[in-house]
Amino acid sequence: MTQTPWLGFSIDRAADTPVFEQICAAIRLRAASGQLALGRKLPPTRVFATELGVSRSTIVTAYEQLVAEGYLSSQQGSGYRLCASGEVELTSQPTPQRTKARKGAAEPTTQTRQSRGAAKGTAEGQGVTPFRAGTPDMRLFPYRQWAKTVARICRSDPQAMFTGARGFGSLALRQSICDHVAEWRGISAEPAQVIVTAGATDALELCLHALAQRGDSVALENPGYKPLQHFITAQGLIPHHLQVDENGAVLPDGSASPRLAILTPSHQFPLGGAMSPARRMEFLRWATKSEAWIIEDDYDSEFRYAGRPIPAMAGFDHLQRTLYVGSFSKIFSNALRLGYLILPEPLTEHFTVSICRFAPRASSMPQQPLAEFIQSGEFYRHLRRVRRIYAERRRFLLEQLAQEFGAYGYCVDHQAGMQVVFHLTCGLQDAEICSRASELGLSVEALSGFVQSPDLTDGLYNGLVLGFCGYSEVELRQGLGLLGRVLEQIRA
Amino acid sequence: MTQTPWLGFSIDRAADTPVFEQICAAIRLRAASGQLALGRKLPPTRVFATELGVSRSTIVTAYEQLVAEGYLSSQQGSGYRLCASGEVELTSQPTPQRTKARKGAAEPTTQTRQSRGAAKGTAEGQGVTPFRAGTPDMRLFPYRQWAKTVARICRSDPQAMFTGARGFGSLALRQSICDHVAEWRGISAEPAQVIVTAGATDALELCLHALAQRGDSVALENPGYKPLQHFITAQGLIPHHLQVDENGAVLPDGSASPRLAILTPSHQFPLGGAMSPARRMEFLRWATKSEAWIIEDDYDSEFRYAGRPIPAMAGFDHLQRTLYVGSFSKIFSNALRLGYLILPEPLTEHFTVSICRFAPRASSMPQQPLAEFIQSGEFYRHLRRVRRIYAERRRFLLEQLAQEFGAYGYCVDHQAGMQVVFHLTCGLQDAEICSRASELGLSVEALSGFVQSPDLTDGLYNGLVLGFCGYSEVELRQGLGLLGRVLEQIRA
Repeated sequence: MTQTPWLGFSIDRAADTPVFEQICAAIRLRAASGQLALGRKLPPTRVFATELGVSRSTIVTAYEQLVAEGYLSSQQGSGYRLCASGEVELTSQPTPQRTKARKGAAEPTTQTRQSRGAAKGTAEGQGVTPFRAGTPDMRLFPYRQWAKTVARICRSDPQAMFTGARGFGSLALRQSICDHVAEWRGISAEPAQVIVTAGATDALELCLHALAQRGDSVALENPGYKPLQHFITAQGLIPHHLQVDENGAVLPDGSASPRLAILTPSHQFPLGGAMSPARRMEFLRWATKSEAWIIEDDYDSEFRYAGRPIPAMAGFDHLQRTLYVGSFSKIFSNALRLGYLILPEPLTEHFTVSICRFAPRASSMPQQPLAEFIQSGEFYRHLRRVRRIYAERRRFLLEQLAQEFGAYGYCVDHQAGMQVVFHLTCGLQDAEICSRASELGLSVEALSGFVQSPDLTDGLYNGLVLGFCGYSEVELRQGLGLLGRVLEQIRA
Repeated sequence: MTQTPWLGFSIDRAADTPVFEQICAAIRLRAASGQLALGRKLPPTRVFATELGVSRSTIVTAYEQLVAEGYLSSQQGSGYRLCASGEVELTSQPTPQRTKARKGAAEPTTQTRQSRGAAKGTAEGQGVTPFRAGTPDMRLFPYRQWAKTVARICRSDPQAMFTGARGFGSLALRQSICDHVAEWRGISAEPAQVIVTAGATDALELCLHALAQRGDSVALENPGYKPLQHFITAQGLIPHHLQVDENGAVLPDGSASPRLAILTPSHQFPLGGAMSPARRMEFLRWATKSEAWIIEDDYDSEFRYAGRPIPAMAGFDHLQRTLYVGSFSKIFSNALRLGYLILPEPLTEHFTVSICRFAPRASSMPQQPLAEFIQSGEFYRHLRRVRRIYAERRRFLLEQLAQEFGAYGYCVDHQAGMQVVFHLTCGLQDAEICSRASELGLSVEALSGFVQSPDLTDGLYNGLVLGFCGYSEVELRQGLGLLGRVLEQIRA
């Protein structure tokens, strides 16, 4: 037995468990119990190896395993740090379902929320229940770099934390947003066209307030983002449901003249395909002809894993009839409550008046730090890193589903996004599966739950919406094990 | 002539201008041009006096004058610092009206906003146009202490900046809010009853969403906070206007059965009186009997300048039928977008569901710093300081109005709040005065503009709503000079 003064644990060389796994288990346990503080630097591999009397490669193996699991982050030249807290499931413990059920019970509200990350998925309490959709893995977030950026502003310009709440938001952030969408989404806009909002949902609500009046019809995708329907009816607007075919949403039929169409052309939510160029053109022609507006909800476009990014419709349209809604929630968690709206130039004056009537709700405080985070490149370093990790998690999930769940259904690989849809072909009902899965602490959403108007689709959509970004391979494997058990039970 | 290496300016002892005024002018000029950085510490009085070859009391006089004008802040034991930037008008310049007109033109939107601080009045660009109402003087804000609090969190617990966005908000902040309202407002509540919102308006909207359904009637004060009427009708609710008499809002008559009554019992907005204890009891009896809810909008209750604070209605009611809406905007500017809602215990479950449907919009980032700012006492140090300064500014404004404007009207002294109402008795119309005043760059609001339903009040309300908190005595005097000119012109 070797005892280390640092973690105060012993290695049992006689045990069946490999030494690196014993080290992992000890660190996981201390992370979960809070004995090891978040952000705490772990001993350098060489020092720790000497202390424990093991080879340095054993320590490296253990640390790298914990990086893969999301417990540790490694920074070139500065070693390893704990980046996940006690919120993380003790993956090596033998009774995951009991622990999960307890966690589920303690947070009753999370099950009732509509996903897509707009209403949930913050740094808090995630990482424990696959397969929540639309939420980033905040264990991977570069808290230290963010804190450095904020601390620099505290030193150099504390007043900057109080600017940006008025009107369209911080000029520095709006400039950074313009740079970002120019490079990543092919949209050319001036800061005067950008409004910083309290998240994407706030931007969508602002569009509804500014562009539609009681009794107007608003087109939205079916299936789609469910809270939209709610916002629309709550304002006395009339939802007009658009079917979705293999080219994306279908144009409004003659029965309604929508003032607005809210679309997800880059990556249909929740099905996942991109709208075809021909269909985009049809929508733009429709909008021009009927003097309607298209709201492009580009909720997770940064996450494309193969091929070239599909340019935004707003870029294609040169912002004539298209308003573009972007979000930082998928990269930053939605805790900061920051999103943005990019307007066609002729609408800026109209929105200046609207924003006065509906006071802006984005806090000033994160705006300057975010602008600097983007400008310094930290934002993109993080984005590239998580994209690589999410791509691996996605590949792993798709492989596992194909190998182990082929008898129940299939996935279509859209090479993008933060969730996959597993279409059921076995006669089982998605709602029943999700309800049973939630009893085991899993967070799986039924595809049928995203149908805005069930009578129009007649049972066409039956599947499971599985988010993968927030979970390590170990956690995904564990979740799939539980999901498999649910499927077997129901079939039996 | 004496030249100082520090400011690089000369004193002209032969000039008519007193020496202390020359020093003031030099500092104002350098503050406005940006040569003197914000937060920059000024030389100690003794050192500066020696450098300039003047008596120390001359320096003290100059510094204190600039403190009164809002340029400098003084901290016991740590000297004087520059706390206002180039945004501040050069009050010693001879052409204020021209400068002001230009500023007014550069910010066309500010004139269209409804005041009370909810939709305007941030750190940016204020301090130049008296008499905007409801906005604190952010030149007095202890940016350094705030930045220290934030920087400490950056060092010790960067993840805390990402917690609090889910559900009801940061637990630490909700605990601080409970402590605050227990001590200051006589309300006894648990953190489980507190929701952190993106400002008071967000809290009011949340109440409307959660407690009223399309077609329901909602009682609101007339005159009152104008955007409320807009939020109510935008949601398909029916406003029911309550008259205001000398005891506060009058109970709803038999013609409507409101589900909610939104009241400002501590300090009627915009008139300024407190609701009498008897009227409060009548409202509580009414709410109990008709199973309605009272929303107590306690928008500026921290600013009471004499006598004992009037306890909140929610404290009196023990939170049975009363929901309490509080705000940090009046102390902190509304830039952080933080307010709160305190619920009767039986409503907490209902609001848990509502908050899921209408995603919370308060950013996580300012929540932990604010909690620590309150707990450390910095919040109260600042509050006491600005209350003292606002009390002086208020006294000055009331004196000036009585001395110089007695021929036009009168004020009723309510010893509270952030604005006074100057009731016109001279036959002039408030709207015309405000329109002319705005041409001179003044921001004065017409009392008649706060009337929600003009047919019910029949010209009863004719006056000027004059905010005083954001302006030094010099600025108020300047504003009054311009206002006097407007009144003379119209009467002529």
